Amino acid sequence: MPSMGKPLACLAGVRVLDLSQFEAGPSCTEALAWLGAEVVKVENPKGGDPGRAILAGPGASFYFLIFNANKKSLAVDLKSPAGKQLVLDLAAKADVFVENFAPGAIERLGFGYEAISKLNPGIVYAQVKGFGAGSPYEDNLAFDMIAQATGGVMSISGEPDGRPIKPGPTLGDTGTGMLLAISILGALFERTGTGKGQRVEVAMQDAMLHYIRLAFAAQALRGGPVQRAGAESVSGANPPCGIYPCKGGGPNDYVYVYTSRTNPEHWKRLLAVLGHEELIGDPRFATPEARHAREEEVNALVSAWTREHDKHEAMRRLGAAGIPAGAVLDTKELAEEPTFRERGILQVMDDPTVKDYCMPAWPVRHNGAPPAVTAAPLLGQHTTDVLGSWLGLSEGELEGLERQNVVRSSRQAR
Amino acid sequence: MPSMGKPLACLAGVRVLDLSQFEAGPSCTEALAWLGAEVVKVENPKGGDPGRAILAGPGASFYFLIFNANKKSLAVDLKSPAGKQLVLDLAAKADVFVENFAPGAIERLGFGYEAISKLNPGIVYAQVKGFGAGSPYEDNLAFDMIAQATGGVMSISGEPDGRPIKPGPTLGDTGTGMLLAISILGALFERTGTGKGQRVEVAMQDAMLHYIRLAFAAQALRGGPVQRAGAESVSGANPPCGIYPCKGGGPNDYVYVYTSRTNPEHWKRLLAVLGHEELIGDPRFATPEARHAREEEVNALVSAWTREHDKHEAMRRLGAAGIPAGAVLDTKELAEEPTFRERGILQVMDDPTVKDYCMPAWPVRHNGAPPAVTAAPLLGQHTTDVLGSWLGLSEGELEGLERQNVVRSSRQAR
Repeated sequence: MPSMGKPLACLAGVRVLDLSQFEAGPSCTEALAWLGAEVVKVENPKGGDPGRAILAGPGASFYFLIFNANKKSLAVDLKSPAGKQLVLDLAAKADVFVENFAPGAIERLGFGYEAISKLNPGIVYAQVKGFGAGSPYEDNLAFDMIAQATGGVMSISGEPDGRPIKPGPTLGDTGTGMLLAISILGALFERTGTGKGQRVEVAMQDAMLHYIRLAFAAQALRGGPVQRAGAESVSGANPPCGIYPCKGGGPNDYVYVYTSRTNPEHWKRLLAVLGHEELIGDPRFATPEARHAREEEVNALVSAWTREHDKHEAMRRLGAAGIPAGAVLDTKELAEEPTFRERGILQVMDDPTVKDYCMPAWPVRHNGAPPAVTAAPLLGQHTTDVLGSWLGLSEGELEGLERQNVVRSSRQAR
Repeated sequence: MPSMGKPLACLAGVRVLDLSQFEAGPSCTEALAWLGAEVVKVENPKGGDPGRAILAGPGASFYFLIFNANKKSLAVDLKSPAGKQLVLDLAAKADVFVENFAPGAIERLGFGYEAISKLNPGIVYAQVKGFGAGSPYEDNLAFDMIAQATGGVMSISGEPDGRPIKPGPTLGDTGTGMLLAISILGALFERTGTGKGQRVEVAMQDAMLHYIRLAFAAQALRGGPVQRAGAESVSGANPPCGIYPCKGGGPNDYVYVYTSRTNPEHWKRLLAVLGHEELIGDPRFATPEARHAREEEVNALVSAWTREHDKHEAMRRLGAAGIPAGAVLDTKELAEEPTFRERGILQVMDDPTVKDYCMPAWPVRHNGAPPAVTAAPLLGQHTTDVLGSWLGLSEGELEGLERQNVVRSSRQAR
């Protein structure tokens, strides 16, 4: 299956020195890579990004591949003085520097903001930490789930009478990475005018607040804490607004049906689809407030109809009538929906060891198509390429560095 | 409470003509506003953005305020020929155009991509729709929850034996808006070199796939569909990895405890905190596989300890020992945590009608502080300002437009 689109040239010529690992940093730099930046992932020669060990099948890690498309890999021993010097030399040539090590680690390596910005005042120096400087937890480790716990996300997710739930999406990681990418791009744009770099930092806990602003708005109006609302919106809504059971009875045989308070037509259209035209205008259901007071009756009307249809048919009929409705699609159904591939939203990564890995690409279309996905790098695949093109090292110098185990190149990786 | 930081100048001089409404589009343009762009929100003179009616208290909508900080408002009747012409004249002067109307609406207004890009070939023309062109549902309406249903998010969120759950965060809206902001910024950067604009489009359903890539990686390895995992990760993890009950027994009296497979020290450190040093090295628990086989015993060990501590104390002690751990904090606890205000992560919006509204600001620090929040605009507050500065209209011309009800200015808004 050929991928649609071409590589983008939005960030052509922008050099990103990427010392990040796992997901929060890599999702950020991958977005920059999809926009056309040259992203060089700096990895230790022994195993590389620890993400290379997660969800690993024969040949490669599905986790690593999905978060590191379109990047280059340079394997260098950061513990050797010669390796450290190489990274400093690369930082002097880079436009962007990204890291998400545990608190204090980047400074101990000698690559802290002071050191790097002195060397290269034009650099955009970007960091992800779990907690912000000044937070009581600034020295703590964090992973996706810790950010979702401490950033309020879990407290508003789950059934009203159940325990908090960790949402399936990795909002703590990718959600944070996206905000950092926005700030890096803003800083790069500013630099086109001023030539000056800047430091941008995001904490995963802080980033979560950005995604639950609806809950903060609800709390400002009604007091808090905001409670879990199951399938409904934490802002409160009038029924029908929820997940209704469909024919089939499987774990995802449901359809979401919503009628907006700001558009009274939704409810009338819905009654027509349900075959209850006689209720259009009936004062028992005519206003959002009335439907709220008769929530059980409203839900019974809707689910009596949804139970008679499978979720796809329900979505088709409700959607065609102009009612916001959506089938609860599972990951297998999404992977098998052909229009995602036709549109380039899912693309096959052409990795030398993992075949036919169909992964979500950058979903924004630029002039009609998402950017093309190219394979994530093998460990050290671009060591020679990058040290040659960024630093002008000769073949002989490169061989010397390899012999001393300062760097590892693709010749060794395969 | 004074806000920290200053307005940013990353996008100084960039003009954004913003025809978006509700949250997906406005969250995107608000990010651009926080980076320093001049974002002019085009609103209808009768009520404006329908978001102005959501979560509305006396004086203003908490919903509108939180998604429209740092923007300007220009109120113009898009149904009048003179109003249409004004928008076309503004589009000719803009750097970015953003809209998220229902499918087909922007073309019916006469502001489709063909029309606008012909007028201004340098413009970055950005759109959010519910479903992508080429999808079977391309004509359907969507809201946050419809995107979360059809984009796989709900299918992987909830208890393993329960129904799908809509996560509390508005990932369908703000999550989509962030991806569009990244692509707009990429296009703006490219334009600094080429002078050419481009069209960028994102569908809310497609955007959701970006946030559940971990599930796609797990599915590629193990087959699908990926199932709901409650508090755990959909990628599978070794225990302890979950939400453990703490003293207090309230709905959010829990602490998340995680031990990474890639760092065997976490488990040893945890045993020391639990007072079970004797189990360090015990083969019954020594490897992730062993702990997986004894999941119930592991969870019992952890929860016996967590039940004896409140969630804050548990997080402090576990975190200080180098174990990833996070208290499940609710929105009220977050709002009342003073360090969020000290660090500018929460800032008070100084609105003329709503006092002391403490809202999450852009969480990324630029050179040490997040950008300062300024009040969201009153309807039409900047009509005169923008028509004067962008189009050079005279006082007399502006008064004429007002008399004909083509525009509405702040004089009428108060």
